[in-house]
Amino acid sequence: MNQYALLHTPDSRYCFAVGRDEIVIRLRTAKDEGNIKVFLVYGAKYEFQTKRSEVEMTAHYKDNLYQYYEKRLKLDDVRLAYIFRIEEDGKSFYYSEDGLTESYCFPEAFYNFFQMPYINENDRIETVDWMRGAVFYQIFVDRFAIGSKKKDSSYINMKWGDKPTPKSFAGGDLCGIIEKLDYLSDLGVNAIYLTPIFLSESNHKYDIEDYKTIDPMFGTKEDFCELVKRAHEKGIRIVLDAVFNHCSMHMKQFQDVLEKGKESKYYDWFLIRGDKPVPEEQNYECFASCNYMPKLNTANEEVQKFLLNIALYWIREADIDGWRLDVSDEVSHDFWRQFRKEVKREKSDCVIIGENWHDAYVYLMGDQYDSIMNYAFTKACLDYFARGNFGAKDMAEKLNNILMRNTTPVNDMMLNLLDSHDTHRFYSEVEKNKQKMLCALALEIVFPGATCLYYGTEICTEGGYDPDSRRCFDWDTSHWDMDFYGKVKELISLKKNEILRYGIVRIYAKGEILFVERRWNDKRLILKINNTGEVQNEMKPYSYEVLKEG
Amino acid sequence: MNQYALLHTPDSRYCFAVGRDEIVIRLRTAKDEGNIKVFLVYGAKYEFQTKRSEVEMTAHYKDNLYQYYEKRLKLDDVRLAYIFRIEEDGKSFYYSEDGLTESYCFPEAFYNFFQMPYINENDRIETVDWMRGAVFYQIFVDRFAIGSKKKDSSYINMKWGDKPTPKSFAGGDLCGIIEKLDYLSDLGVNAIYLTPIFLSESNHKYDIEDYKTIDPMFGTKEDFCELVKRAHEKGIRIVLDAVFNHCSMHMKQFQDVLEKGKESKYYDWFLIRGDKPVPEEQNYECFASCNYMPKLNTANEEVQKFLLNIALYWIREADIDGWRLDVSDEVSHDFWRQFRKEVKREKSDCVIIGENWHDAYVYLMGDQYDSIMNYAFTKACLDYFARGNFGAKDMAEKLNNILMRNTTPVNDMMLNLLDSHDTHRFYSEVEKNKQKMLCALALEIVFPGATCLYYGTEICTEGGYDPDSRRCFDWDTSHWDMDFYGKVKELISLKKNEILRYGIVRIYAKGEILFVERRWNDKRLILKINNTGEVQNEMKPYSYEVLKEG
Repeated sequence: MNQYALLHTPDSRYCFAVGRDEIVIRLRTAKDEGNIKVFLVYGAKYEFQTKRSEVEMTAHYKDNLYQYYEKRLKLDDVRLAYIFRIEEDGKSFYYSEDGLTESYCFPEAFYNFFQMPYINENDRIETVDWMRGAVFYQIFVDRFAIGSKKKDSSYINMKWGDKPTPKSFAGGDLCGIIEKLDYLSDLGVNAIYLTPIFLSESNHKYDIEDYKTIDPMFGTKEDFCELVKRAHEKGIRIVLDAVFNHCSMHMKQFQDVLEKGKESKYYDWFLIRGDKPVPEEQNYECFASCNYMPKLNTANEEVQKFLLNIALYWIREADIDGWRLDVSDEVSHDFWRQFRKEVKREKSDCVIIGENWHDAYVYLMGDQYDSIMNYAFTKACLDYFARGNFGAKDMAEKLNNILMRNTTPVNDMMLNLLDSHDTHRFYSEVEKNKQKMLCALALEIVFPGATCLYYGTEICTEGGYDPDSRRCFDWDTSHWDMDFYGKVKELISLKKNEILRYGIVRIYAKGEILFVERRWNDKRLILKINNTGEVQNEMKPYSYEVLKEG
Repeated sequence: MNQYALLHTPDSRYCFAVGRDEIVIRLRTAKDEGNIKVFLVYGAKYEFQTKRSEVEMTAHYKDNLYQYYEKRLKLDDVRLAYIFRIEEDGKSFYYSEDGLTESYCFPEAFYNFFQMPYINENDRIETVDWMRGAVFYQIFVDRFAIGSKKKDSSYINMKWGDKPTPKSFAGGDLCGIIEKLDYLSDLGVNAIYLTPIFLSESNHKYDIEDYKTIDPMFGTKEDFCELVKRAHEKGIRIVLDAVFNHCSMHMKQFQDVLEKGKESKYYDWFLIRGDKPVPEEQNYECFASCNYMPKLNTANEEVQKFLLNIALYWIREADIDGWRLDVSDEVSHDFWRQFRKEVKREKSDCVIIGENWHDAYVYLMGDQYDSIMNYAFTKACLDYFARGNFGAKDMAEKLNNILMRNTTPVNDMMLNLLDSHDTHRFYSEVEKNKQKMLCALALEIVFPGATCLYYGTEICTEGGYDPDSRRCFDWDTSHWDMDFYGKVKELISLKKNEILRYGIVRIYAKGEILFVERRWNDKRLILKINNTGEVQNEMKPYSYEVLKEG
């Protein structure tokens, strides 16, 4: 047996509650252990020395190196002690906190058993149920649709449909979105994620001057409340962008510090080296190296209160359904813990989605976010569909690896995406191969968690990196590929199926076909993808099939 | 190279801040990789694609399977991106979030580099500095010393020195401890951990009726404040036992529920199945299976407030220096997070020590405790000194393994112990072999973190499991082994050395000799232990040596 590969960590993604008295336990072993059987030896913690049960575990997930045994267990006593017994060629080994041993001393087990000491209700990760079936539509507001309501349009400096520059303003706004709700509803979308909408001089509005004012380019507070109300009527949820890592240098608090330096009561709201901030010298912390976006000091209690107040304000005033957290990995854990408490107290199914491009497990343990933008999934899709770096087996292994980064409740809330305002358009990445694009979308729909479509995906919008990925939506339907559009709609409609919402997932390859299987009760849905340029097992090149059973 | 063994997790015990702009990065590999060199490739996150540095890492720790490379790094930009480059026989491999690869695509690095996104001050683990040099003395109050102050002694039901039963009351009290402060100070102790002292009918007082009343058997609030004041004058800190997992069934809130059932406003303070608690049926959650110790529902906000108020009360009223948290692993993380915030806000160097017998990393990430009672260390000492399960090499490997469970700041605050009121006496475990006992104590002193001596250790107190481990302290000095006592005192005095407080640690074996080396600036302290019954390298059987250099 490959001892080096064994891994289990209690009270982690390897052992977590999925209910009041139900847990999932995972054990990692090397992938190619042919001859082993894995058993969970468990019992109530205070009786473990004398009273134990044993149950066999099954390997459900397999990545390029490891396989992951898993067992879901209903408990009588939620104070659980356990170890693993591994049979190899008829011989037993024991895996405990002391590693792999040939024998195990049960009388002294309290020193080195694994344990789930107790399932406390306030530690348990509750799945925001609507996320399981969510199909998001991400809108870059300036580029989606211009509403018919009159506004001062003098800021618009490009013709709708021209290629945008970093400084382009095309005129899209909230009323435009309201007027397109029927369109989105018909497409099957049931959630919208809006890039920032608060007062800001830029087109992207990630540099915010006033977090309680809707930018007049986009509309008014009334327009936004109307948008949420109308969306809710159609069963569409609205998630806003919380840009809490940094603000605009025009925000009045930073302006005060610019003027008064250390004398300003806002000096400690920012992270400044020296007596006063000097933008030309960039002697303060910023986002990336943008001196016009000073970083907020979220270790400061006043800043915390200021931001928490904003988070609650838009839930109370407009009844929003979630916050997507910009550059969330650079903001303090401590702040996100408070953020979660306040937000969930206000609206328990308000979803919290971090923008972490990396393994974010430490933010997803139940005390901070619910979910992240799943850029690891994006990267896998690029490697498989666009770059040709992966075959079906590699892809299956990578997807299993991504699933094993987190607990099941978190996987069920992941925001899976192929692209966003921060990447190239996926359609351009696959060199406008519509079949590949549909295969990727099918995978995104069937994969556990929420699906997020970047606006225009359904009409084959092209685009390279920012600003090219932020082109205007082309409302001239004569330009659309209605066949493609119809297939996207069909795929989206799959997400209503309870199998995709609640079903367990198995991902594997047979030859060059990728299989994603979901199971719920007696029902099964299987997605097959042939991502090669040849016919494989009677599947056409670059094609997918969805099979339903039961 | 053994790919299965590679492990790195960002923002974890494998990458953590040790200062405002300083971090430690660790990489785990298989132990026996002969031919590899490990390099850290790092740079500012937003420039990583184009601007990077490289530095070689060194393997500092080795357990039975793995070795751990480590690098301490001072940063200009605290937004760090990094990967590892591993050279094997002249060929380079790269280890990133995507695992081990033969090449690495720096232009797309933002998808899969490792990162330390930012060092936020409110996330950083601050070491409670006094813990590094602390020598604790754990006192089971009823059995240490009876003070000369008059009290109602009618509850005392055993003669001082007789063998205790679970129901024995010997009469030890707080005034007794005050009168022995000179003794403890002379011994070199600079911290005392008291088992519970609040109102309770038992001798151990882990079933508390009133958390704001000192049990009259032990004294008064004034006595306790006097104890802390006098101890502080002698440079001795006082840590109390926080029994917050459960209380006594005699606590008035539980009594109210017993009487009124669901009508009681305290019903949700407990975890009851049914309309009212019935002790005979144990239809409520308890500690272990003790129906007289109902578990408190720390998910309930009123219970949280009640307990937090107690935690602050004793800091404010008596100026205590820390809380040891009873059965802390069964209490919610969420509660401990609040506990930490409140306690640290009140007194920043008030230490928080959990009673977790197992890998407690998830509690030790900076948001919950500072430290735990290091029972993994206890178990290793039992296996090495008492059971003969370990040779010197096994022991070195186990101790390294224990160190690698946590970050350096946490290791520096660990409460290392050989025994406690919850174990057999270590002196009995080593079958009264005084040489073995001294070797173990030497190890405990030189090992990073605080040392905790169970009362009577210095005078060779014997004892099996509870209640035998809770015998009366024998104040008749004619019974003492003054040579042993002197050596214990000498070992304790070592802890004043700044090498033991701040020095890095290396633990290894040469033949059957165990080496524990600490280094600080140009100074070095080396502990050598021969735990065999034979002469080894000119060291006597069961002996230790302390060498100082520089």
